[in-house]
Amino acid sequence: MINVGIAGASGYTGIELVKLISNHPEAKLCAVTSNSYSGKYLTDIFPSLKSFVKAGFENLICEDLDIKSLSKKIDVIFLALPHKVSMKHVPALLDHKIKVIDLSADFRFTDAGAYESAYQDHSSKHLLKESVYGLSEIYRNKIKTSNLVGNPGCYPTSILLPLLPLLKEELIRTDGIISDSKSGVSGAGRSLSLSAHFCEVNESFNAYKVGNHRHTPEINEILSLHSQRDVSITFVPHLLPLTRGMLSTIYARAANNVSENDIRKTYHAYYGNEPFVNILDKNLYPAISHVKGTNCCNFGFHFDKATKQIIIVSVIDNLLKGAAGQAVQNMNILFGLKDETGLNMVQAPL
Amino acid sequence: MINVGIAGASGYTGIELVKLISNHPEAKLCAVTSNSYSGKYLTDIFPSLKSFVKAGFENLICEDLDIKSLSKKIDVIFLALPHKVSMKHVPALLDHKIKVIDLSADFRFTDAGAYESAYQDHSSKHLLKESVYGLSEIYRNKIKTSNLVGNPGCYPTSILLPLLPLLKEELIRTDGIISDSKSGVSGAGRSLSLSAHFCEVNESFNAYKVGNHRHTPEINEILSLHSQRDVSITFVPHLLPLTRGMLSTIYARAANNVSENDIRKTYHAYYGNEPFVNILDKNLYPAISHVKGTNCCNFGFHFDKATKQIIIVSVIDNLLKGAAGQAVQNMNILFGLKDETGLNMVQAPL
Amino acid sequence: MINVGIAGASGYTGIELVKLISNHPEAKLCAVTSNSYSGKYLTDIFPSLKSFVKAGFENLICEDLDIKSLSKKIDVIFLALPHKVSMKHVPALLDHKIKVIDLSADFRFTDAGAYESAYQDHSSKHLLKESVYGLSEIYRNKIKTSNLVGNPGCYPTSILLPLLPLLKEELIRTDGIISDSKSGVSGAGRSLSLSAHFCEVNESFNAYKVGNHRHTPEINEILSLHSQRDVSITFVPHLLPLTRGMLSTIYARAANNVSENDIRKTYHAYYGNEPFVNILDKNLYPAISHVKGTNCCNFGFHFDKATKQIIIVSVIDNLLKGAAGQAVQNMNILFGLKDETGLNMVQAPL
Amino acid sequence: MINVGIAGASGYTGIELVKLISNHPEAKLCAVTSNSYSGKYLTDIFPSLKSFVKAGFENLICEDLDIKSLSKKIDVIFLALPHKVSMKHVPALLDHKIKVIDLSADFRFTDAGAYESAYQDHSSKHLLKESVYGLSEIYRNKIKTSNLVGNPGCYPTSILLPLLPLLKEELIRTDGIISDSKSGVSGAGRSLSLSAHFCEVNESFNAYKVGNHRHTPEINEILSLHSQRDVSITFVPHLLPLTRGMLSTIYARAANNVSENDIRKTYHAYYGNEPFVNILDKNLYPAISHVKGTNCCNFGFHFDKATKQIIIVSVIDNLLKGAAGQAVQNMNILFGLKDETGLNMVQAPL
Repeated sequence: MINVGIAGASGYTGIELVKLISNHPEAKLCAVTSNSYSGKYLTDIFPSLKSFVKAGFENLICEDLDIKSLSKKIDVIFLALPHKVSMKHVPALLDHKIKVIDLSADFRFTDAGAYESAYQDHSSKHLLKESVYGLSEIYRNKIKTSNLVGNPGCYPTSILLPLLPLLKEELIRTDGIISDSKSGVSGAGRSLSLSAHFCEVNESFNAYKVGNHRHTPEINEILSLHSQRDVSITFVPHLLPLTRGMLSTIYARAANNVSENDIRKTYHAYYGNEPFVNILDKNLYPAISHVKGTNCCNFGFHFDKATKQIIIVSVIDNLLKGAAGQAVQNMNILFGLKDETGLNMVQAPL
Repeated sequence: MINVGIAGASGYTGIELVKLISNHPEAKLCAVTSNSYSGKYLTDIFPSLKSFVKAGFENLICEDLDIKSLSKKIDVIFLALPHKVSMKHVPALLDHKIKVIDLSADFRFTDAGAYESAYQDHSSKHLLKESVYGLSEIYRNKIKTSNLVGNPGCYPTSILLPLLPLLKEELIRTDGIISDSKSGVSGAGRSLSLSAHFCEVNESFNAYKVGNHRHTPEINEILSLHSQRDVSITFVPHLLPLTRGMLSTIYARAANNVSENDIRKTYHAYYGNEPFVNILDKNLYPAISHVKGTNCCNFGFHFDKATKQIIIVSVIDNLLKGAAGQAVQNMNILFGLKDETGLNMVQAPL
Repeated sequence: MINVGIAGASGYTGIELVKLISNHPEAKLCAVTSNSYSGKYLTDIFPSLKSFVKAGFENLICEDLDIKSLSKKIDVIFLALPHKVSMKHVPALLDHKIKVIDLSADFRFTDAGAYESAYQDHSSKHLLKESVYGLSEIYRNKIKTSNLVGNPGCYPTSILLPLLPLLKEELIRTDGIISDSKSGVSGAGRSLSLSAHFCEVNESFNAYKVGNHRHTPEINEILSLHSQRDVSITFVPHLLPLTRGMLSTIYARAANNVSENDIRKTYHAYYGNEPFVNILDKNLYPAISHVKGTNCCNFGFHFDKATKQIIIVSVIDNLLKGAAGQAVQNMNILFGLKDETGLNMVQAPL
Repeated sequence: MINVGIAGASGYTGIELVKLISNHPEAKLCAVTSNSYSGKYLTDIFPSLKSFVKAGFENLICEDLDIKSLSKKIDVIFLALPHKVSMKHVPALLDHKIKVIDLSADFRFTDAGAYESAYQDHSSKHLLKESVYGLSEIYRNKIKTSNLVGNPGCYPTSILLPLLPLLKEELIRTDGIISDSKSGVSGAGRSLSLSAHFCEVNESFNAYKVGNHRHTPEINEILSLHSQRDVSITFVPHLLPLTRGMLSTIYARAANNVSENDIRKTYHAYYGNEPFVNILDKNLYPAISHVKGTNCCNFGFHFDKATKQIIIVSVIDNLLKGAAGQAVQNMNILFGLKDETGLNMVQAPL
């Protein structure tokens, strides 16, 4: 049984982790921390949790993030904390032999300069060499032996999974790649802001951070590192009037002499045995509802022979494969379990 | 392992049953029938099911409802069929020793006349004496030994659970009870109608069947039978612009000398050990989001000492406790399992 | 041409007033005030206003509420301010001969004690005798000659319009009246709160302030004063996952010997010539979408002969007939215009 | 006063035309036709219309499309009919001196072959030379003197308005243009289909007709004709879970030596005096809520100097500028009125 702690349990990602660990057959939730709700029962922060009377978290009280105290209780911690807050705690957590799966951006980058230009100064640069980028299907072998996983952003996950095989195998050109991505509101978290006010979001839709979203350097670094080519994509995020789910429509151009079949074969070689990546048949494209509540990334693609334009439509649940679900998948990998342990419940389409 | 069949698997209740049985540790989905999609893979009707590659239903093909063929494969069948269709199949199913959990209204009534005035002629009236009303918490003992369960309607479930103890224990008056109930759109099923068209429902809200909804006689019969008093409530259903969930606001007046504490104690006596009924503390009231995706009925109440007015707010997920979830709970009871088997996953609040 | 000022223009009610006055053929928007956005262009607070390039508000800058300065520019002011803030400004506004239509609760009550028990101390009690309750159809004659209108709350408007004629004409009993009311989120304003966060409201529904909402004493006072009977209703508000609109389902019992026809005739006598009250034919009930974007209150009713139970379903747009629309209707009355001036645009049902 | 007929008044576009003509100071609604509802009052098809008691359509009964009878009553007809149905009626309508504004695709094309490959055989090809493409801002002069306007599709309107000036002035390259477009559900009309069922759309989002939507040839023909260059764009439509509104995110690359300022100046030269096209300042992008209920097309753009990538975000209300609003704008042009007559009401942002 894995003893688990969750830091930042009172946010949407935090509570999703609480749910997943509570349902996990090989893990036990032993500690939760919260800055805003320290001293409160978890069930008082989220009244819906009161419905689950024997789930194991009924008596959990949010504590302060005290590493010494935590080290007696847990083997691994999920950090669902803001950027810059995570990096402060990670060195001591590792010193205390607690494995870390960090859901902030702090340990996603190899290049400190890239991180610092997108975010802020990094106080633990030396750990960037140790940390592994937690895109489970691509970096599984590295994750297995790591103590520090930088869990990917939601947008990057939806974009990298379909793009990486094509770039790595040189099936597409490196220039002119565009991802037009759309996310549900939960991606922005539970904090209050006018842009999350029901009346401002409902019945509307907009692009935001056009040309300068922080996920762009994350995407570009992984695309470039993994394919060993210099890749820089155009990325435009949009806000959907729905709670959970994300869809990326990705545009790329095939390299010379590449056929539709080459692409399909490559995808099946990469993902044919993956439990959480589903490649749709020709002429089929996924909807967000197909993956809501699951840890899956589903995608379909269109290949225009004449223009060599490839259009990929990729969906994930931003809180699961885009955050908490992939984090638990990484925990499973870290602890030698099958990826799907605790993550393969069937969901109805509604 | 219980071998299970689902008739009418292509509707919203049907697919919810598919999900629950697929996740159930003691049940196996052996057959699905569909009138509209006979011969088609289940995964072609609901593309979202393709995400679950090892769930066990990948190769299930919708068949016609052939009882002889079914009897070789299954121990129990869920009938997610329209009213009047169910009653035609039930006698033969029982003859073939298949236990039946019927989600239509056909076997909810004891009084054939009440059924016939609300619905239509009943072709198997003799079975109404054998059938048990599947309100699990109230009729558990009868369900245990039954072969035919008439699974309750969604509105009745949300209303009966909080009202029955108060009526039975004579804590409230029998006259002047009102339930103002609100349901998500999935309650109307997957059939096409202008009233389920996105643009007609979205950003709107309305009452319907004011004064003459078919669930009224179902509610009244159970209230009266169980409390052995003559009860007739006023029931007004409304349509909410959301997919799943139901909330009933129930108004009743306390009998003389009844205190708030009497009510609370009675509720705890009835439901204190029930895994799927949660009574909220004073001044707390549930939201639909608290039970979405669960088999729970949560309720809170307000007692006005001066006027003796009681206001109860009760919520369920109409597709789960209001349909498929309670049906599986009843299957568990029928087969001697704990009620919560396969039904106690924790859900995040979003 | 009426010269108009709007105080608190940056809230949802304020901006709705800006819209209505901009479209009004006999009124001109001369000043807007805002506490939070003083010094800013109105079009910077609400980017959508930039679409209207010749509407007249392009150059309006939010000012502080300086009464002396305002008195040179305007004949009438709408106060879309929080409770308690309005009452501080009203005496000086009246002294400067500015007519006041106050959308807060501060001048809705005749009985200072009732106000103070629901809200807080009242600093201008002497004006409560001068102020008129702005339920246009009922108090039109008083409004005509008043300088201070206390514009009704949204819930009260949806409840009082159908109930007042029945109480006044003694067609219903005074006891046991219930209003189960449901409002869109815009009713809570543009301020940030967890209960207006998209992810908390969307796909959910809940009751709130059960048994103690501040609109209850407002409703009771008007019902009692107007009918000269002692009336106290049970009122339960709920929050709908939609932006604008409100529906009240009202339960009352007919007095002895009252027929359905008596009720219908009374309604037509009261409202037959009213441009903004529509009584639906038998068996018809309104949806929120029928009045969204309009100043109308539409209602239908059901009469159960056996039980004498009356069920009324009433809808308004909470921002229009429930706030800004009725306020402009009252301005029209104050200035001798027809009620519908500037308010009778046709809206499509979507 | 212009006497107006509307054919196909019972659809969402039809009813929007009813609304606009009812509010129009220089037009009178004289006849409505409907195939499905012939003989019925308009107010019975759309109960919400009953709120508008003096709007002029109270007594309008849907008639069959009888051209002889219509010719005595109307000067102009809007055809809100399905493709292929419009073309059958247009020759006779023109023979009877009725001006035609056709909202189907039948008269949008100059090249019959392009039409026929996207739709079906064309029975009135000879009229394609006479018809004018009704993109008001671009073809105003031709529209003025025409008797037959092919009103643009909604997607094309949102894409062509920002793209045409850039292509015509050779500021962008003709290759590699992409429009990733998202539409509300009302774009699919009021007909019943599983893809418009509330529960299938709500909380979901998907691409559809990837690589083969019928609006693609319409867009390409106008882009090519107007710029006299050979242009073929990649167009991917998506379905948003909201009722009305459309947003297109358009990707193009600047020609050599083109600066951001060149683009902005060109836009202002084309649209600076247009009442319904709003160009946003640098770093501002529109939301669908900014134009909902208006006839405006608002857009902002981002120019990346390094890569020469241009990203344009453009919004319209699909039922107004994308259909009925632009149709009325075209009627105004046809009859010598100012474009904005009857179309310039201010809308609040909710």
